[in-house]
Amino acid sequence: MNPRLGRRLRYGMVGGGPGAFIGDVHRRAAALDGEFELVAGAFASTSERSFKQGAILGLDASRTYGSWADMAEEEARLAPDDRIEVVSIVTPNHLHVPVARRFLEAGIHVICDKPLATNAEEAEALAELVESTRLVFALTHNYTGYPMVKEARELVRIGRLGRVRKVVAEYSQGWLHQPIEASGQKQAEWRQDPDRAGPSSALGDIGSHVDNLVRYVTGLQIESLCADLTSFVEGRVLEDDASVLVRYGGGARGVYVTSQVSVGEENGLSLRIYGDEAGLAWRQERPNELRVLLADGPAEVRTRGSAYLSEPSLHNTRLPPGHPEGFIEAFANIYRNAGRTIGAVLAGTPPEPLDLDFPSVREGVRGMRFIEAALRSAEQNGWVSL
Amino acid sequence: MNPRLGRRLRYGMVGGGPGAFIGDVHRRAAALDGEFELVAGAFASTSERSFKQGAILGLDASRTYGSWADMAEEEARLAPDDRIEVVSIVTPNHLHVPVARRFLEAGIHVICDKPLATNAEEAEALAELVESTRLVFALTHNYTGYPMVKEARELVRIGRLGRVRKVVAEYSQGWLHQPIEASGQKQAEWRQDPDRAGPSSALGDIGSHVDNLVRYVTGLQIESLCADLTSFVEGRVLEDDASVLVRYGGGARGVYVTSQVSVGEENGLSLRIYGDEAGLAWRQERPNELRVLLADGPAEVRTRGSAYLSEPSLHNTRLPPGHPEGFIEAFANIYRNAGRTIGAVLAGTPPEPLDLDFPSVREGVRGMRFIEAALRSAEQNGWVSL
Amino acid sequence: MNPRLGRRLRYGMVGGGPGAFIGDVHRRAAALDGEFELVAGAFASTSERSFKQGAILGLDASRTYGSWADMAEEEARLAPDDRIEVVSIVTPNHLHVPVARRFLEAGIHVICDKPLATNAEEAEALAELVESTRLVFALTHNYTGYPMVKEARELVRIGRLGRVRKVVAEYSQGWLHQPIEASGQKQAEWRQDPDRAGPSSALGDIGSHVDNLVRYVTGLQIESLCADLTSFVEGRVLEDDASVLVRYGGGARGVYVTSQVSVGEENGLSLRIYGDEAGLAWRQERPNELRVLLADGPAEVRTRGSAYLSEPSLHNTRLPPGHPEGFIEAFANIYRNAGRTIGAVLAGTPPEPLDLDFPSVREGVRGMRFIEAALRSAEQNGWVSL
Amino acid sequence: MNPRLGRRLRYGMVGGGPGAFIGDVHRRAAALDGEFELVAGAFASTSERSFKQGAILGLDASRTYGSWADMAEEEARLAPDDRIEVVSIVTPNHLHVPVARRFLEAGIHVICDKPLATNAEEAEALAELVESTRLVFALTHNYTGYPMVKEARELVRIGRLGRVRKVVAEYSQGWLHQPIEASGQKQAEWRQDPDRAGPSSALGDIGSHVDNLVRYVTGLQIESLCADLTSFVEGRVLEDDASVLVRYGGGARGVYVTSQVSVGEENGLSLRIYGDEAGLAWRQERPNELRVLLADGPAEVRTRGSAYLSEPSLHNTRLPPGHPEGFIEAFANIYRNAGRTIGAVLAGTPPEPLDLDFPSVREGVRGMRFIEAALRSAEQNGWVSL
Repeated sequence: MNPRLGRRLRYGMVGGGPGAFIGDVHRRAAALDGEFELVAGAFASTSERSFKQGAILGLDASRTYGSWADMAEEEARLAPDDRIEVVSIVTPNHLHVPVARRFLEAGIHVICDKPLATNAEEAEALAELVESTRLVFALTHNYTGYPMVKEARELVRIGRLGRVRKVVAEYSQGWLHQPIEASGQKQAEWRQDPDRAGPSSALGDIGSHVDNLVRYVTGLQIESLCADLTSFVEGRVLEDDASVLVRYGGGARGVYVTSQVSVGEENGLSLRIYGDEAGLAWRQERPNELRVLLADGPAEVRTRGSAYLSEPSLHNTRLPPGHPEGFIEAFANIYRNAGRTIGAVLAGTPPEPLDLDFPSVREGVRGMRFIEAALRSAEQNGWVSL
Repeated sequence: MNPRLGRRLRYGMVGGGPGAFIGDVHRRAAALDGEFELVAGAFASTSERSFKQGAILGLDASRTYGSWADMAEEEARLAPDDRIEVVSIVTPNHLHVPVARRFLEAGIHVICDKPLATNAEEAEALAELVESTRLVFALTHNYTGYPMVKEARELVRIGRLGRVRKVVAEYSQGWLHQPIEASGQKQAEWRQDPDRAGPSSALGDIGSHVDNLVRYVTGLQIESLCADLTSFVEGRVLEDDASVLVRYGGGARGVYVTSQVSVGEENGLSLRIYGDEAGLAWRQERPNELRVLLADGPAEVRTRGSAYLSEPSLHNTRLPPGHPEGFIEAFANIYRNAGRTIGAVLAGTPPEPLDLDFPSVREGVRGMRFIEAALRSAEQNGWVSL
Repeated sequence: MNPRLGRRLRYGMVGGGPGAFIGDVHRRAAALDGEFELVAGAFASTSERSFKQGAILGLDASRTYGSWADMAEEEARLAPDDRIEVVSIVTPNHLHVPVARRFLEAGIHVICDKPLATNAEEAEALAELVESTRLVFALTHNYTGYPMVKEARELVRIGRLGRVRKVVAEYSQGWLHQPIEASGQKQAEWRQDPDRAGPSSALGDIGSHVDNLVRYVTGLQIESLCADLTSFVEGRVLEDDASVLVRYGGGARGVYVTSQVSVGEENGLSLRIYGDEAGLAWRQERPNELRVLLADGPAEVRTRGSAYLSEPSLHNTRLPPGHPEGFIEAFANIYRNAGRTIGAVLAGTPPEPLDLDFPSVREGVRGMRFIEAALRSAEQNGWVSL
Repeated sequence: MNPRLGRRLRYGMVGGGPGAFIGDVHRRAAALDGEFELVAGAFASTSERSFKQGAILGLDASRTYGSWADMAEEEARLAPDDRIEVVSIVTPNHLHVPVARRFLEAGIHVICDKPLATNAEEAEALAELVESTRLVFALTHNYTGYPMVKEARELVRIGRLGRVRKVVAEYSQGWLHQPIEASGQKQAEWRQDPDRAGPSSALGDIGSHVDNLVRYVTGLQIESLCADLTSFVEGRVLEDDASVLVRYGGGARGVYVTSQVSVGEENGLSLRIYGDEAGLAWRQERPNELRVLLADGPAEVRTRGSAYLSEPSLHNTRLPPGHPEGFIEAFANIYRNAGRTIGAVLAGTPPEPLDLDFPSVREGVRGMRFIEAALRSAEQNGWVSL
């Protein structure tokens, strides 16, 4: 139950049709804490597939729509006690902005998959639209939902690392090491299609997570960067590998390594941060631990759920230490926090500060600027400013 | 949606009141796949606390009960289309059997937390009752729900390890290393109270998982054992540490190490099995990987979700490799499989073979026999036969 | 250089002929710090093989002997400035005592491989002989030479763990999972031959290390034990797998798991100790780190060579953290410490306390008592006292 | 014994005085296999400290020299059966070339620490000098001495990875995260002094290892690079952190991350290589294993000493799997291979092909070119060609 409303939040979904990976994740994330109820959806680009998915999900046929435009229009007409309060957008990238815009205009809160847009300009315009409403907009940069990422952020925030000097962040996957988009793998297909993915593949799909994760944990702003983009698989228009040298405001430096062709890697997102007093290391594939590296003593292995962790970390966990939480749980933290904030807004009460911890539309704009700068750097073959 | 019924299965819960750990886990596990709907409950031993929890969960007050006896009676009176189809029993151990018995008698399927009972006799009687009905009874030995545990089982089954020789299994926790039951920690309190926990603590709470996990993966039956039980914390009646030497039918040997006072350990369940051709190693705290140890080649690191895994493993996973699944997901596999089997029974159709993969009441009887034998061995200070 | 003598200590070797594993390790261990010089040897059971090995090692032919009896006799006749000051005994087990006895009687210090003897009685008699001389006797229980094992010992000694409750120790190897002794593998052959190995294989060869390591780190004395011994490989007389439940004086409990048939395991020696305040974990295959498990804070990962380590740990290391030291270095610590103690004795000066840290003949007697008790327990199929 | 000479090779050392880290490592590496004998040395920049060290090492005073110039001169005058056959140069960087030159001119083989020189020009000139003699010159890029690095190289060489696409290499240390050179730490002092270290610190000291390791394993040649160099600690002239984007001939890409200020890191050298068919991962701090990442199957964990490894890997190891070898053993492989090659040359016989596997003077020239290119790139703030 949403604690402010005393009932579940009604949500609808755009995208997430049969076989879609991320739509399924969103639905499980929404279900996990029992604070959301799926009541409507436009799940696919064809009416037939949308209705098929609605039926699989047990949705009332009257609330399944053949297009997202219909859905926005029809839902807006329903009585306030019936209509969806929030929409989850889980389409390919190019639709994020138009869909979000339409639902925002209908007064409906938005939870949107990342990257926010396909260019910074439309991202900025969307952010301005959001800010002109009183609506909540959450971007599912899900990796910041992990409790030990939140612990990392707290450690930086309270100065445990001293002044941050160096960031080493990596997101290596291997699933695109062969041209599987050519043989009809749907996930690969749209990610390698500029019309749907936007102007980048590795950067947009996973580099954006690296950028977001680093900013979330450190608060550092990029001043300039130098990117090297490569398409290793023959015939690809978009890069499947990108490495970026980064200079932040204040003098810190970073290295971002991202790849979709690092064969044998699964979902190898990792983050290390070194300050002048201590460092930290986290790996998404072992998300329940955070290593804190000390100058003069043994490294600490902090574990999710432990009583000694910070309040933001403990706020975002469900189980005691040693009972692994994973990807869906981290995702669910974004849903729960955004949902509770939406509940507070709907109830006309101030949200809990700890619930405000989810990625915003502004974060999406910053992400688009990072991607555009990296593309510009690659084009110019050198350093560029942001 | 339950695929056979085209709707969610209606379930009620006995136990799982405010602050209960395992009740919350069961609810999330049931929610994760959207195939269950919680519609009734008797959540606590006092009416007040039960209604409080019902309200928190958004349950209709008419379906919240002050006692499980009332709940069984009232639900049985409801129209078949309204009443619960399955009950989840998440009470302290001593209530498992009486509660299960009552709901079975009311024709309601059962999902029950472990250990099944507080002695083998009542466990056996319950098993006979179950078998005299056509009802499904699932025991939530959740660790067998992990996809890589299922892979381990398949590797043994297809002979990849050769003939199993040696089992090394451990379940080490540290949370009871001090007498926290004396200061009112509820989880600790009932586990150290013979009236509610039964005649053992470490064996009943975690040794039972070890026993179950080994049998699930290897199929080995214990012929004799020698146990050493200790209460390290002063004032404890029940053992908080137990080590067991095991001899299986066919000549294999095992060592089980369990402890609730291994300070600093969190939920340290691990399993290693060595055959005459290969071995395997799995750790619950890193559940997404399974190491296969070969005689003449490099060890393999198998990872959850990988295409090369066995059908039973892949049947019980939701995400691609590298996207960690955890404790709740494993638990949810038991719910989903049991729920689908119940759905098939309700629909009068044969269940899918892969859905039959959940722990049965018979498994609970075997577990009780293991615990009783270990207690007998400790009393006699030597080897005993099963 | 031996610091007390200002020159290298002259040593001879008995055993360690062509193809011998452990003789080679002893020679490298002696060479590593430049404090020993090999000047004599009786390397094999045949004169021919002994001379062959002497030539390979560049030894003066006049100091290569056809038998260890000759060597003891001839070396004793040499001028004090020429003859060996210490003998390294690296023969199969059954020769340890007779060889040691002969050299001790010739006034020569002894470094002897483990286990000390093939039964406790001859071990005890040898210990008494050693004690009746002023000679140094070092037993190469090499695993206690690792710097992080010494750190573990210090942590226990200063009370960092509180009172020790539980020990979990394991030594799992897989190299004998098939009957390679039947096809002439020399290392396997003598270890499975009661005439040369003594009455046990797994216990004598590796169980003795577990016993020694636990006692070294914790100081606990075994009061009673229950052992389960198995020969998994057909045709074997001696056990290739042994598990032991242990009760120590003062109430602590232990579990020892040892195997030579745990296929895929290499040299899997590990030790965990849990006190009432903290625990620790160490693995021989990653010897440069020691994990300290705390009740109320994150686990610490202590690393070899770090400035925060104890004096005994730092005394036994050569390289900064992150520059791995291994098996030979640990072995060399026993050589160096024993050699420096011998140097002090030869110089007539008191040895440095930190140099006295090497396993003694008494430790060997205790080891034999452990093995004999385990064999007795297996025979009686139950608990036995020590 | 050197196998071709039937005796130990006589070597002298320049540098390696009291308290020097790397000189001590060289001496242990030389001692480990019993194929070298230290007979002469000019150990320090002052005569007094050189003689002090000679005495500690038990050297004949007539063979201890007050300066390396004297040593070269005097040793050359000794009878061929007395004088050193090879010199180990373990001085600060700026002396490598002049010392090497002098000994080469005296007809003495050279084993020299890295980096070869302080600029590419003098490195090239030295290489030409070496090539004009028939003398052996080994550069102690010791990390290529690890058996699992050799296995990695073999896997690339035989095509197991397919065509190499991506390299991710890192060498992160934390020991210079504070200005310890200011408080007289000798190792830090010279490394931050351009007169002795040359024009770089992080690149010269550890970046050179990364460059060498990548080239050794992959054979890739760098075509262009873009480096970002930073001095994080106030007052430093030389960089203490350097990240480099790399483009190789043939289209592969690389990222090199090096730092001396990554607080809490010890000696964090790691290498990953991704081809179009498989990948591999190795970490210096766990040097005994190599992970092979496959496209369609579980990752393999290859372990040092295993029978299934390649000949070059097994040629460079001493112990069975599970008995850790470390830093000194890897270093010793360079000594042993170079020493055996020198022995073959001295004996007038062709060296064994497997013994020719040690870093050459040409490798040192390539290393200097890499460093110079990186410095140039930093100066120009952009990509540069090699």
